[in-house]
Amino acid sequence: MKKKAKLLLALTCGLALMGMANQDDSKLLEEARKYFEPLPKVVDIKENPVTPEKIKLGKLLYYDPRLSKSGLISCNTCHNIASYGVDNLPTSIGHRWQIGPRNAPTTLNAALHVAQFWDGRAKDVEEQAKGPILNPIEMAMDSPEEVIKRVSSIPEYVEFFKRAFPNDKNPVNYENLAKAIGAFERTLVTPSRFDKFLKGDISALTPEEKAGLREFIKAGCASCHNGPAIGGTMFTKFGIVESYWEATRDFVTLDKPTMTMDVGKFAVTQKKEDLYVFKVPSLRNISRTYPYFHDGSVWDLKAAVQIMARVQLGSELEKDKLEKIVAFLKALDGEIPKDALEMPILPPSTSKTPTPLR
Amino acid sequence: MKKKAKLLLALTCGLALMGMANQDDSKLLEEARKYFEPLPKVVDIKENPVTPEKIKLGKLLYYDPRLSKSGLISCNTCHNIASYGVDNLPTSIGHRWQIGPRNAPTTLNAALHVAQFWDGRAKDVEEQAKGPILNPIEMAMDSPEEVIKRVSSIPEYVEFFKRAFPNDKNPVNYENLAKAIGAFERTLVTPSRFDKFLKGDISALTPEEKAGLREFIKAGCASCHNGPAIGGTMFTKFGIVESYWEATRDFVTLDKPTMTMDVGKFAVTQKKEDLYVFKVPSLRNISRTYPYFHDGSVWDLKAAVQIMARVQLGSELEKDKLEKIVAFLKALDGEIPKDALEMPILPPSTSKTPTPLR
Repeated sequence: MKKKAKLLLALTCGLALMGMANQDDSKLLEEARKYFEPLPKVVDIKENPVTPEKIKLGKLLYYDPRLSKSGLISCNTCHNIASYGVDNLPTSIGHRWQIGPRNAPTTLNAALHVAQFWDGRAKDVEEQAKGPILNPIEMAMDSPEEVIKRVSSIPEYVEFFKRAFPNDKNPVNYENLAKAIGAFERTLVTPSRFDKFLKGDISALTPEEKAGLREFIKAGCASCHNGPAIGGTMFTKFGIVESYWEATRDFVTLDKPTMTMDVGKFAVTQKKEDLYVFKVPSLRNISRTYPYFHDGSVWDLKAAVQIMARVQLGSELEKDKLEKIVAFLKALDGEIPKDALEMPILPPSTSKTPTPLR
Repeated sequence: MKKKAKLLLALTCGLALMGMANQDDSKLLEEARKYFEPLPKVVDIKENPVTPEKIKLGKLLYYDPRLSKSGLISCNTCHNIASYGVDNLPTSIGHRWQIGPRNAPTTLNAALHVAQFWDGRAKDVEEQAKGPILNPIEMAMDSPEEVIKRVSSIPEYVEFFKRAFPNDKNPVNYENLAKAIGAFERTLVTPSRFDKFLKGDISALTPEEKAGLREFIKAGCASCHNGPAIGGTMFTKFGIVESYWEATRDFVTLDKPTMTMDVGKFAVTQKKEDLYVFKVPSLRNISRTYPYFHDGSVWDLKAAVQIMARVQLGSELEKDKLEKIVAFLKALDGEIPKDALEMPILPPSTSKTPTPLR
């Protein structure tokens, strides 16, 4: 064969391969779009429109430890923005060092979820925000009135409530406090390279990540982990094929002797079909929100993915496939909004502010 | 008198008064300069030169709760930059909810102090940084080796140590960790309107604040609270004229039954002359760093100033003088460096990182 002809053949083959690759990628994108959506900029809702004034107030409240009885614990203590909205602990430490029963889920992208908490007992981030402040093993405030007593003793807060809720006659109340925190959380959205991919930029993911995405869908992960948050859209039993407890309890690093199997949503509804049912968590930033599962039993992402394949899908992932899936999951690490990382200067207490209690 | 003449007289009197005021102000400035200095931009020292790489590493470490046994407590937990470098608690809450014996002093401007801790047992911020991490009732790490084991399991940290200490063969060690935190703290300087005044801008303080400064010096406060941090330059007995304990214990809001009189530096040196001796705290940002004194017994600034006048100087300040002094003290509220308020994103743990312990 002549040099020119050889070159031509090589070129043709190359283009054909590239074409195939492109075709494959286009198919993958098409397939992916059936399951996933790019993140919105802000998770706005009619019932609590996000405004700059609400965000400002909500951020202050999120970072303010005076929302806890002891004056030590803020929302950010367990949902630390600096570590992707979690505390990276199996389960959180609360008032008087009491240990929570479940792993603190990230606040990042949480507003996209169909409901809040692992058992979905709060309908949105606004309702969720009211819980931990009053939970005796978390922030442990005695009552909404006690919270409002603290907040309304601080003139700056009163002013910020007025600005955030200009149409309310008495804006400083627990509902609005939760609304403001909720509004701030609605801005905690973390776009990643995967969003670029979903918007059509096929080169935004590496070939390995794309292979991982393919395996993720093929293995069946996307049947539960879908939507803009790659999760958070539904509830399901943890341990469909085999007991999650058998698969995970050897991984437990803390409180091993006292840990028992969590019945999930059943504890709320007492319905048999809710036994071991939990909300499917979002996989956004999953590489940063270890340890995994509702009990924080497993620290290693690869191990967690393998367990999920086994107990939910009844399959054992080959090493190669597992690695590709994990590579894809790491591409979901997104950008934390810069504004959320900037701590606000907390307004000072006054002589009217009740002092903290232990 | 003609209109013109009247106007001239008024003008002359006005100018004369202004002249007097200016003369008074100039005198006050001159007097103030004997005691105080404007803040430097950064509190640099030869032994640990502040570099951008050290600041970056130090800030990460300052915000990282993995420096505590539980993974819950960071330097920022008790020295919260969002609340002027303190936790606004009488005394801090540490590992397993153990209560510290003394009020957490602010890290802001702390590098200017002659020594660290209320009893001065650490010579500088670098040495201080090593203390709480290993203190069993604070961050409770078992040993420097345990700390370094955690840090060196995280590749990003290893890289940041290399960059911060480029001439060290094994840069990841406890000395350098403390140096990096120290370097970050050396940037925590909070210039205020008082610095503008000290630099010659007489209008930077209001007439009331200037009157307060005058009273502050006249009453004798400046004999202990002096230097660029308006304090932190010396040690003295708390309760020179009368017992501080008699004067403050009725103010205690927490742990009243178990609180006892603190012997101060005596506990370290066992020397009789050190009985009830403490470092004179800085008055920079004092209106924000309540509650006051080594035991955080007093929440109200006015009350604290009155107690100081009584037990240190043997005088009772009249209401008017007291208010002026407090007005002056509020003018010491400074600007927190924006960069310090921006939380860094913490590098992720790896499979080699020891998991937290409770």
